[in-house]
Amino acid sequence: MTPRDDLASVPLPGGFRAHTGAAGLREEGGDDVAIVVADPGATSAAMFTQSRFAGPSVEVSRPRAATGRARGFVVIAKNANVATGEQGRADALEVSTLAATAAGVDPGQVLVASTGVIGRPYPMDQLRAFFRGLGAGGAPGAGEVRGSAPGGGEGPGSRSAWDADALAVARAMMTTDTHPKVAERQVGPARVVGVAKGVGMIEPDMATLLTFVLTDAAVDGVTLTRVWRRCIDETFNCLSVDTDTSTSDTAVVVASGAAGPVPDVDLAVALREVCLDLTLQLARDGEGATKLLTVSVHQARDRDQARRVAKSIVNSPLVKTAVHGADPNWGRVAMAIGKCSDDVDIDPDRVVIRFGELEAYPAIPGPAGLADLAKVMAGDHVDIEVDLGVEAADGAGDCTVYGCDLSDGYVRINADYTT
Amino acid sequence: MTPRDDLASVPLPGGFRAHTGAAGLREEGGDDVAIVVADPGATSAAMFTQSRFAGPSVEVSRPRAATGRARGFVVIAKNANVATGEQGRADALEVSTLAATAAGVDPGQVLVASTGVIGRPYPMDQLRAFFRGLGAGGAPGAGEVRGSAPGGGEGPGSRSAWDADALAVARAMMTTDTHPKVAERQVGPARVVGVAKGVGMIEPDMATLLTFVLTDAAVDGVTLTRVWRRCIDETFNCLSVDTDTSTSDTAVVVASGAAGPVPDVDLAVALREVCLDLTLQLARDGEGATKLLTVSVHQARDRDQARRVAKSIVNSPLVKTAVHGADPNWGRVAMAIGKCSDDVDIDPDRVVIRFGELEAYPAIPGPAGLADLAKVMAGDHVDIEVDLGVEAADGAGDCTVYGCDLSDGYVRINADYTT
Repeated sequence: MTPRDDLASVPLPGGFRAHTGAAGLREEGGDDVAIVVADPGATSAAMFTQSRFAGPSVEVSRPRAATGRARGFVVIAKNANVATGEQGRADALEVSTLAATAAGVDPGQVLVASTGVIGRPYPMDQLRAFFRGLGAGGAPGAGEVRGSAPGGGEGPGSRSAWDADALAVARAMMTTDTHPKVAERQVGPARVVGVAKGVGMIEPDMATLLTFVLTDAAVDGVTLTRVWRRCIDETFNCLSVDTDTSTSDTAVVVASGAAGPVPDVDLAVALREVCLDLTLQLARDGEGATKLLTVSVHQARDRDQARRVAKSIVNSPLVKTAVHGADPNWGRVAMAIGKCSDDVDIDPDRVVIRFGELEAYPAIPGPAGLADLAKVMAGDHVDIEVDLGVEAADGAGDCTVYGCDLSDGYVRINADYTT
Repeated sequence: MTPRDDLASVPLPGGFRAHTGAAGLREEGGDDVAIVVADPGATSAAMFTQSRFAGPSVEVSRPRAATGRARGFVVIAKNANVATGEQGRADALEVSTLAATAAGVDPGQVLVASTGVIGRPYPMDQLRAFFRGLGAGGAPGAGEVRGSAPGGGEGPGSRSAWDADALAVARAMMTTDTHPKVAERQVGPARVVGVAKGVGMIEPDMATLLTFVLTDAAVDGVTLTRVWRRCIDETFNCLSVDTDTSTSDTAVVVASGAAGPVPDVDLAVALREVCLDLTLQLARDGEGATKLLTVSVHQARDRDQARRVAKSIVNSPLVKTAVHGADPNWGRVAMAIGKCSDDVDIDPDRVVIRFGELEAYPAIPGPAGLADLAKVMAGDHVDIEVDLGVEAADGAGDCTVYGCDLSDGYVRINADYTT
């Protein structure tokens, strides 16, 4: 959950190599293209946005991911290539082919992801020049020498060779993120390293805007897919910055196998921890956010109901502004619960609302109690806990969701964002 | 749609009388209680919030409205009396009885509505003193002398007698509204006069936070209920300021019959016009709002789909901030359409997006086109039009919804609002 700007380097797990470089899409300068590939034999799983306006990158990647053979990806930052019609589709295909050629892998094994402004075609001349500068076959397969220089010369602004670390990849993916998001865990002999980006247009439907997790654990594709779906469901799919769902959400895990097998359950725990860490980093860095907001709902009929109620609270602009103003306005939490009007089994007389560990309802606090609640609300992490009282507390009806406060900073960032 | 502060007076329709006064709930001073009653024989219809945390006022009023015999209402401003437990229920009953006694009608015929802070019990001592000051039987039935002085003495700050007009009623209902909302239409010999309040916590599920429409047309209760439901569905239920649904939403129409019968269809048109007028006033006065935002969706599968897509656009914080910043960011409109991921019949290749009359997608505008779109966005009323292309344009799949921009003013108002 700590911003990782302090880290000098976060090495990739074994069996991966990466390249980042600048194709000139980032006006302020800096890398805007990242390519990561695993050695042959890797397994992978991926989830994508459910948006009806899903971008060409998602359209190209979805069937490739479904084959289970994907072992790499290219990320283009600052241009989402969304709502760009037939040209956009052709451009996404060409970019993935150029990246695959540079990396020396089959284009069918490379996913493409893109993030930035909507409705503007890629500057293909710049991108073609960039990939041309990379040469071909830069990512050697198993048995080839690692860390070798790229086959061809370097384009202007590109890094040397294929030695980028996870921090460089996370940086190259950023748009209005204020810092790169990286998380890692050790699991037996293997490592799990994840990167993510995203600050606005964030209420992922299946995944958040661009997250990639790499591991050198050896795991079969079926297991990886099952573990990944559950992991995403409990982490990124419980995140909301502003209720707006991106057209480009992509969540990919690639396992190189270089470190050998680890127990499934250990890998699942490590993946979940890495994804939760990234989720919290994304929430804290939500556009204009000054605080992390977590909402846990207990004693619901089932997890779906718990999530629906928790999302209603974490997405309420009135709750989010109260958190911003450190106002212990528990009435707005009651309102947000009440909005779930189809949940007719919710009875206000059985609901309990707490800020942190302090009860706010039904034992309505007096002035002293409100002052204590205000102290909780003034922290940089506000936790709202709700017992729905629909079912007994057995854990089946629990859900925690992640968000942030709503500040004038959010309005300023998005009112002034240029088209 | 024009704020009515310029009007010196808006008389009630025939067969109604009203009293407004100050019980001391409004710290800045001014009336905070309004009572309106019709003569015996009136018909009425009402709709209420669907919130699971519906307040005691709604709980008391709902069964009374269902009898069809309600002919009056009392409004308490600045305190919502919500989430106040058993005490709150007893208080709501007592307030409605006190108001009915003051007005000289059966308590079962008086609805109660309340608006303001959640979770704070009514100051019953102040309210009892206020109603005591009004005396009893102030609203004479048919045959009694109208405009007569109240039976007893006046409480401190109360108006003289039962001669309040619609503007005074609208003013007494205000919380953070910047001006009273009143609308009126003539229909044959009858008048239709409506009042409303509400600026935040506004995405009505069945009605908006407190609107009352009075007419002296004679109309039977069954017809009035049918016409009212449809009217609310097309006006207040198409309004959203901030996606938050109030615990106190109440929409009541009372017909005194004093002007005799008018054709149903004419009454329906007048009711719809009055409610639409009030809806637009509410949208323009949304918390922090600087612009009216209307979104019309056409060529949907049906009206439900059209409304779902239109609501997704009008509620998107990214669209709302773009409107605030006069940014012709049509990509965010595409994103908001795409969020309706269950609408699998929406095909981006058949969608058309316009700002006013100017196409933004799929014919992507160049710099000159963007400049023209920016001019449209700079107006104080921004209209977004979407053809979904799911069905042919026959009008069945149309819906228009009403909202406003999202400004730092909204954040400031709600981060600083006191609990």
